[in-house]
Amino acid sequence: MRPSERTSNQIRPVTFTRSYTMHAEGSVLVEFGNTKVLCTATVESGVPRFMKGQGKGWVTAEYSMLPRSTHTRCGREAARGKQGGRTMEIQRLIARSLRAAIDLSALGENTITIDCDVIQADGGTRTASISGACVALVDALTHMRNKGMINSNPLKYMIAAISVGIYKGEAISDLEYIEDSVAETDMNVIMTETGKLIEVQGTAEGEPFSFEELDTLTGLAKHSILEIIDAQKQALA
Amino acid sequence: MRPSERTSNQIRPVTFTRSYTMHAEGSVLVEFGNTKVLCTATVESGVPRFMKGQGKGWVTAEYSMLPRSTHTRCGREAARGKQGGRTMEIQRLIARSLRAAIDLSALGENTITIDCDVIQADGGTRTASISGACVALVDALTHMRNKGMINSNPLKYMIAAISVGIYKGEAISDLEYIEDSVAETDMNVIMTETGKLIEVQGTAEGEPFSFEELDTLTGLAKHSILEIIDAQKQALA
Amino acid sequence: MRPSERTSNQIRPVTFTRSYTMHAEGSVLVEFGNTKVLCTATVESGVPRFMKGQGKGWVTAEYSMLPRSTHTRCGREAARGKQGGRTMEIQRLIARSLRAAIDLSALGENTITIDCDVIQADGGTRTASISGACVALVDALTHMRNKGMINSNPLKYMIAAISVGIYKGEAISDLEYIEDSVAETDMNVIMTETGKLIEVQGTAEGEPFSFEELDTLTGLAKHSILEIIDAQKQALA
Amino acid sequence: MRPSERTSNQIRPVTFTRSYTMHAEGSVLVEFGNTKVLCTATVESGVPRFMKGQGKGWVTAEYSMLPRSTHTRCGREAARGKQGGRTMEIQRLIARSLRAAIDLSALGENTITIDCDVIQADGGTRTASISGACVALVDALTHMRNKGMINSNPLKYMIAAISVGIYKGEAISDLEYIEDSVAETDMNVIMTETGKLIEVQGTAEGEPFSFEELDTLTGLAKHSILEIIDAQKQALA
Amino acid sequence: MRPSERTSNQIRPVTFTRSYTMHAEGSVLVEFGNTKVLCTATVESGVPRFMKGQGKGWVTAEYSMLPRSTHTRCGREAARGKQGGRTMEIQRLIARSLRAAIDLSALGENTITIDCDVIQADGGTRTASISGACVALVDALTHMRNKGMINSNPLKYMIAAISVGIYKGEAISDLEYIEDSVAETDMNVIMTETGKLIEVQGTAEGEPFSFEELDTLTGLAKHSILEIIDAQKQALA
Amino acid sequence: MRPSERTSNQIRPVTFTRSYTMHAEGSVLVEFGNTKVLCTATVESGVPRFMKGQGKGWVTAEYSMLPRSTHTRCGREAARGKQGGRTMEIQRLIARSLRAAIDLSALGENTITIDCDVIQADGGTRTASISGACVALVDALTHMRNKGMINSNPLKYMIAAISVGIYKGEAISDLEYIEDSVAETDMNVIMTETGKLIEVQGTAEGEPFSFEELDTLTGLAKHSILEIIDAQKQALA
Repeated sequence: MRPSERTSNQIRPVTFTRSYTMHAEGSVLVEFGNTKVLCTATVESGVPRFMKGQGKGWVTAEYSMLPRSTHTRCGREAARGKQGGRTMEIQRLIARSLRAAIDLSALGENTITIDCDVIQADGGTRTASISGACVALVDALTHMRNKGMINSNPLKYMIAAISVGIYKGEAISDLEYIEDSVAETDMNVIMTETGKLIEVQGTAEGEPFSFEELDTLTGLAKHSILEIIDAQKQALA
Repeated sequence: MRPSERTSNQIRPVTFTRSYTMHAEGSVLVEFGNTKVLCTATVESGVPRFMKGQGKGWVTAEYSMLPRSTHTRCGREAARGKQGGRTMEIQRLIARSLRAAIDLSALGENTITIDCDVIQADGGTRTASISGACVALVDALTHMRNKGMINSNPLKYMIAAISVGIYKGEAISDLEYIEDSVAETDMNVIMTETGKLIEVQGTAEGEPFSFEELDTLTGLAKHSILEIIDAQKQALA
Repeated sequence: MRPSERTSNQIRPVTFTRSYTMHAEGSVLVEFGNTKVLCTATVESGVPRFMKGQGKGWVTAEYSMLPRSTHTRCGREAARGKQGGRTMEIQRLIARSLRAAIDLSALGENTITIDCDVIQADGGTRTASISGACVALVDALTHMRNKGMINSNPLKYMIAAISVGIYKGEAISDLEYIEDSVAETDMNVIMTETGKLIEVQGTAEGEPFSFEELDTLTGLAKHSILEIIDAQKQALA
Repeated sequence: MRPSERTSNQIRPVTFTRSYTMHAEGSVLVEFGNTKVLCTATVESGVPRFMKGQGKGWVTAEYSMLPRSTHTRCGREAARGKQGGRTMEIQRLIARSLRAAIDLSALGENTITIDCDVIQADGGTRTASISGACVALVDALTHMRNKGMINSNPLKYMIAAISVGIYKGEAISDLEYIEDSVAETDMNVIMTETGKLIEVQGTAEGEPFSFEELDTLTGLAKHSILEIIDAQKQALA
Repeated sequence: MRPSERTSNQIRPVTFTRSYTMHAEGSVLVEFGNTKVLCTATVESGVPRFMKGQGKGWVTAEYSMLPRSTHTRCGREAARGKQGGRTMEIQRLIARSLRAAIDLSALGENTITIDCDVIQADGGTRTASISGACVALVDALTHMRNKGMINSNPLKYMIAAISVGIYKGEAISDLEYIEDSVAETDMNVIMTETGKLIEVQGTAEGEPFSFEELDTLTGLAKHSILEIIDAQKQALA
Repeated sequence: MRPSERTSNQIRPVTFTRSYTMHAEGSVLVEFGNTKVLCTATVESGVPRFMKGQGKGWVTAEYSMLPRSTHTRCGREAARGKQGGRTMEIQRLIARSLRAAIDLSALGENTITIDCDVIQADGGTRTASISGACVALVDALTHMRNKGMINSNPLKYMIAAISVGIYKGEAISDLEYIEDSVAETDMNVIMTETGKLIEVQGTAEGEPFSFEELDTLTGLAKHSILEIIDAQKQALA
């Protein structure tokens, strides 16, 4: 029995609110239950130095938690003077996943920066970020087409992500904080709308897991991600 | 004529949404028109080292703009590795103002940290922050009384703040970005509900201003701040 | 009665020693009683990136206290690896004030950097810095004219600054440390020789202050600043 | 055909040289072909603040590449003043994996720090690091038992790691740099000697990968890791 | 012929102005010709962590150049966020030399911090710093005896320092900037009043130097240092 | 009697292993007894900004100790976010010494970066680094000639370095850690194969030393350095 009385493969209500803020080329508030992340996409012409002169674009990402998005206040990284390892790891994951969904050649020498700022955290902030960022990215690409910055659609496929895990011996999907904090195994899966994998990251938090559990968890993730991609498409319709 | 067709002493619609997020002891989304700031108050027992053993509490503040709260993306301070001068200046102002509204002795050896994170910027983010932070502070103090952490109310008076300025030769209240960016003089005023001043900061952006203009601007500010304090009280009712 | 037996509107002896050091284009030791600040002006061709191509110049400032300019040793910011909030706030104020006194277009694409290093602190270091910096700036501008870097005088008016405050219920001018540390209200005023305001920053350190007190303090400041501007002019004569 | 003419499941020669340096409680040079990493284990009494008073120990790790371990010189992180995201990600992975292999309660309030310094890089440095670190950890635990710091063996099982991937459409094991730099999918697998998974991290570098490829890759990894664990045990015999 | 027309072993006029600033326990402006350094000594009870519980004191030092102490403005280290290698090297040298002159056991668990801030630079700032710091140290020790913090005199001997070098093929003493910038060999010597060496640092800037030149330079240094120690003693008399 | 039973002028076994790693243009493991330092030389075209347009090359150096090269673990500088004063001092010394051995004009606008990473420390790491770096530099210069980057040999003379000191009242050469940690005087000498001095740095750790001891120590150093240069030449033969 899950604390929320959800079934093992039942995800929380997922919503994508587009144009949540007014300045960004793409701005989406994504909610997975109580987890709320503001994902904005910024379009800038030009690319970082290491990409110059290749005729290709770039997609990068930054991630941050508001200090009081969490149960107890987490220190502000700007005040401490550096981003922590977890932050770095997550923003690298977000950026890598989005780049896998984009044909950088079709982007021209432009850069899209995705900012994922967690307003409220209740588990699964990185997978919610990726799912919301993909919608913001689509809006930013539409903006670019409307402005004549690009001629074709660089998006190869929609992507979304989910957190799955072993909780009290059972494989469950979309862990909230109370589940995540005691899960034996935690896995983040990022998948395309065509059912192919972009990234799989599974970690034994307590006991190591078996190859069978790996199979069960990825299967569960596939099911949930397809649901989320449906929600993305409805939001974009 | 102001771009928004407001009269010179007309402030934008001001709203305070309490309990905006679920973890903080006080959590208020304050809106001055399109300017939106999330103000959270965190209660922690204990005080910083320099305050230890005096039997008094402490109030501090941090301020940040989400990277895409602005027209063009402003770099994330955590990524740059330090907070800029403007950020420092603003968060010192917020903290100083709130401390002036509190009897630190009545707070016990507890610390309240106010986080002001700008979700969307359209002028006046620092004064909106202070006005919203005061409401979040009241909620945090109520939380402390309910938990038995304090016995009396440390709040001496409600405070609020407004930005006023000289725009095209005329004194106006509550400047939005389009006005602020070309104003000749910019002034931030912080006042108590009893009509006394906590802080006055006036700056000549273009031509220096006269003592008469100083008078006009502070008078205008008084009028607007009393309106904001009314809105605070309604939100808290 | 003030500790120094000065009357309420009596400022400390103010001196400006020009050419205090030999390398800078302007170098002034300013003394307000025991407060001593070395203000140097450095002329460099070129402007910061954000000013390039506009045909205008730039004026910036940095402020620092020598570690033992104070009663107890304050840690060296270079050793701590960052400038504190107070430092940032003060150097932004100095730079902003001096820019208000200069026609940047008449400066050409040149930069003047003002360094204010506090040799000995006894209250009012930021206002002494601004008053001394203005003299160093004049010397640097003269140097530029002599070198043919500029053809006209970019200085619009001399400026000076004073700290005023409410001490034991009375408005006084030019607070020394022993007064400043217990003042109820502290206000820094920066004014032109033509009697117009560049900046007003008033802060309630204890009780909030009234609009009448604001009037009294700014009036007091005006009187003192005109005295300081006289001293500047004599030093420059 | 692989550049090295290895078969798809053939790993490079793997060696573990114990007592490679003389000061550390565990010191192992691990070589996977041309990839060479020095793994040292340092035993210190006491635990970090957040672990204090729980009667449990801690295992942490740091990772670094010597500037010229790579084809072209990579800048020294100490000179740049911060560790990069990749470094953070890898050292978090190493530490997490080793903690999963240890019963922290049996370690007492002691800390073991694993340093993995890459002497020469040719692909697979993170998995070589984990494999070598496990041997250094065993030596450090033996040292602790000999010194009477612990009474039982905190090691739950040996662990090792391998990098597998899709290279020119084929699943291969133990990628060297020339393969890794063009692989379509890259996966790091960490497994216990009992055939259970500690961590799986698969990333689509080019095209997304299928669930079948995930199965093939993890199966391949299992085979290789068991070979490495054999080599570890021979080195420790 | 030297630019200043000094003879090869002639040092510049050396002065020590005690009580130059009012807050420090020792405060000396040292001048070697146009080189001017403010040396302050701060007495604090307690010692750094690594010295605790040994019943001994500590002496440390910090060195900095005011941005415009030099011909062209050198960037402020506090603004850059770190102290440069030259600064570190010099302040380590100053501290090490002073500790060699002190019986740390006789100092009790107290710390003396020497700050050397270069007001104006014209060559030899590090040796002027050491020479001035020794006088400030003596004043601080006197202060400690007067306050009853120590019972005996921890100073073992006065020390002073000089820069010598090979300039246009000739060994000269007390190089000013114009000489120093083209010298073939540069050597800093620190010596006690008893004619024993504390530190010798000789560097070939151009051609390497012979053992005979080493002898000549150290002999020249000895002569000059004894003159400086005379000046120190007169200042302290 | 020395702990190692060496005679006073007997150095430890010195070896230079060339091509120790495969990527660098010069890669030498230098061993002075148990002190082991990996010295790599990296050749890059171009020079730092301050050297541009002069048609000359540049040689720079970085030094670091692996965290567990020492008896107890020394913190990793990359993790602390800055290089310590000792590191800065040593790498400046290494670079300065090597530049003194090179005709920068003959190097063209190329930069050679020497990295000295201490694998195991037992005293004398800086002098071993310089001695090993010189061999790596020679290999890098040979690489440049083979690649046609330079036409003549920029090396003016081989250089090497030794640590000498006063240990229990006696002058000894090549101090190992157990001697170094209690030596009264410690001196590092860097010399050319032609018997001329590049750098002399002598420090009184306990009692000051006499001019006679300075002579004895430098004489001892000369003897040892010539032995080391023989070993360098054999390694390069």
